[in-house]
Amino acid sequence: MAQESFLVGLIGSGIGPSLSPALHEREADRQGLRYLYRLIDIDTLGVTPDAVGDLVRAARDLGFDGLNITHPCKQLVIGHLDALAPQAEALGAVNTVVFEDGRAIGHNTDVTGFAASFARGLPDAPLDRVVQLGAGGAGAAVAHAALTLGAGHVTVVDPLPDRASDLAAALNRHFGEGRAAAGSPDRLASLLAGADGVVHATPTGMAAHPGLPFPAGLLHPGLWVAEVVYRPLETELLRTARAVGCPTLDGGGMAVFQAADAFRLFTGREPDSTRMLADIAELAAGTPAAGESDAAGVRG
Amino acid sequence: MAQESFLVGLIGSGIGPSLSPALHEREADRQGLRYLYRLIDIDTLGVTPDAVGDLVRAARDLGFDGLNITHPCKQLVIGHLDALAPQAEALGAVNTVVFEDGRAIGHNTDVTGFAASFARGLPDAPLDRVVQLGAGGAGAAVAHAALTLGAGHVTVVDPLPDRASDLAAALNRHFGEGRAAAGSPDRLASLLAGADGVVHATPTGMAAHPGLPFPAGLLHPGLWVAEVVYRPLETELLRTARAVGCPTLDGGGMAVFQAADAFRLFTGREPDSTRMLADIAELAAGTPAAGESDAAGVRG
Repeated sequence: MAQESFLVGLIGSGIGPSLSPALHEREADRQGLRYLYRLIDIDTLGVTPDAVGDLVRAARDLGFDGLNITHPCKQLVIGHLDALAPQAEALGAVNTVVFEDGRAIGHNTDVTGFAASFARGLPDAPLDRVVQLGAGGAGAAVAHAALTLGAGHVTVVDPLPDRASDLAAALNRHFGEGRAAAGSPDRLASLLAGADGVVHATPTGMAAHPGLPFPAGLLHPGLWVAEVVYRPLETELLRTARAVGCPTLDGGGMAVFQAADAFRLFTGREPDSTRMLADIAELAAGTPAAGESDAAGVRG
Repeated sequence: MAQESFLVGLIGSGIGPSLSPALHEREADRQGLRYLYRLIDIDTLGVTPDAVGDLVRAARDLGFDGLNITHPCKQLVIGHLDALAPQAEALGAVNTVVFEDGRAIGHNTDVTGFAASFARGLPDAPLDRVVQLGAGGAGAAVAHAALTLGAGHVTVVDPLPDRASDLAAALNRHFGEGRAAAGSPDRLASLLAGADGVVHATPTGMAAHPGLPFPAGLLHPGLWVAEVVYRPLETELLRTARAVGCPTLDGGGMAVFQAADAFRLFTGREPDSTRMLADIAELAAGTPAAGESDAAGVRG
């Protein structure tokens, strides 16, 4: 009787400031869809991250069409799904669940979102030697995306050596030996000197973590710089890199394309990512909450 | 970040053909509200009616603002709520749950909805002696409404004698001794001959139960006839009664005002019931599914 409608949500911790509801609902409004995006914050509910399974089942039963999943539930949710899309299976992390005929299918639009943003924003960037800073959840997703895009070699640098070497090992298993290695932070100067580009996937540059992730002197004009942080869109790293002459890519594109890819999965409709990029520029300019997390999993 | 929005639903059995989603969403659209009404059918989920408690808790956790509750869960839900509004407590049945600061409050807008419809549609009807056909869930609600409106005496007639006498006893406890009695179906001729009006609250007249609930010869011009069935709006009882010269009230008003009262509880906004009455005339004209239930609980 009622028109077609879409009910989706985001499960995670500390997600109050998420821009996902506004990004999704604005695009749905422009397409004339009845669409509602709810935040389901495990901190507010007072439950532990392993409650994600019960929450996913409840969402399916109550008529949700799908869910986004963020920190700290992206791995935990996998045991509660019926199937995984290839990029989610390869990464071992899910940020999007789609309910189809009662089945819960896991996807990862952080991977596809970063890849789409990079292809749009730095289409001619050389990819032979990439340095990746940060081996958490967002780092794993963008490293997968970089190798999917054809990067020759990715060096993963993280203050936690095990996390870097675990990610490098996983990348080599999936993309073939010799495609990735862990790099020590104290070798960053020589790594960046010989690199085509650097992907920054740590929280540095967000309101709660101001500053640069490495000394400005390590930047050089032969290095592209891709940022995952999107609040603010203009991080100190991007500002400094542009001043040096580096081609840059801000984190807004990944945030938009992960949302756009989820929107397409939820609705079967094609989102207009150009309009969504204008939205995020406006939304990210709002005052960010200190210590906020983000849907792209920078905290992971 | 996102605009204010409302997520509500209906829990019950066999609710697929319910008009509630369309009634609520159309009014919300006219008011410019983001509003989504989901059907949560225990038959589709394959759960028993006592799952209503888990479903209510899940809805609260997933960000629902409220729920409508229908057959067969209107009594069962009470044990899972934090407080009851007076009319729900008096009736012992809840058709509307509102989540307020994490608490679940039970209301009954079948009672307030029938009262509002009657006051609008038959404002000058005498109420000294009322006969009520049907002592199920809808019957209990409208009998409470009739006595709340000031009916002098209600005689409850039901093919199940215990159900009729139980309802009469409950009405006397709440409204004072001597306000209600059970009447045997075989006394209906004399009861109607001496009555000011009759409230019809059985499924007779719905698509799956065609016909009249009693012989046409028992109608007389001194009797008003109020119907609870609203699909179709024009039941055989109403058509026959109008031909005899009885003032009549169709079931659309109760369906609209119970929805309007729930809408007001969910949103804090004042619905426009005149527009909603136009909606139900249009919606109820759609082809009804055989054996459908309805939000007003005629099946109860």
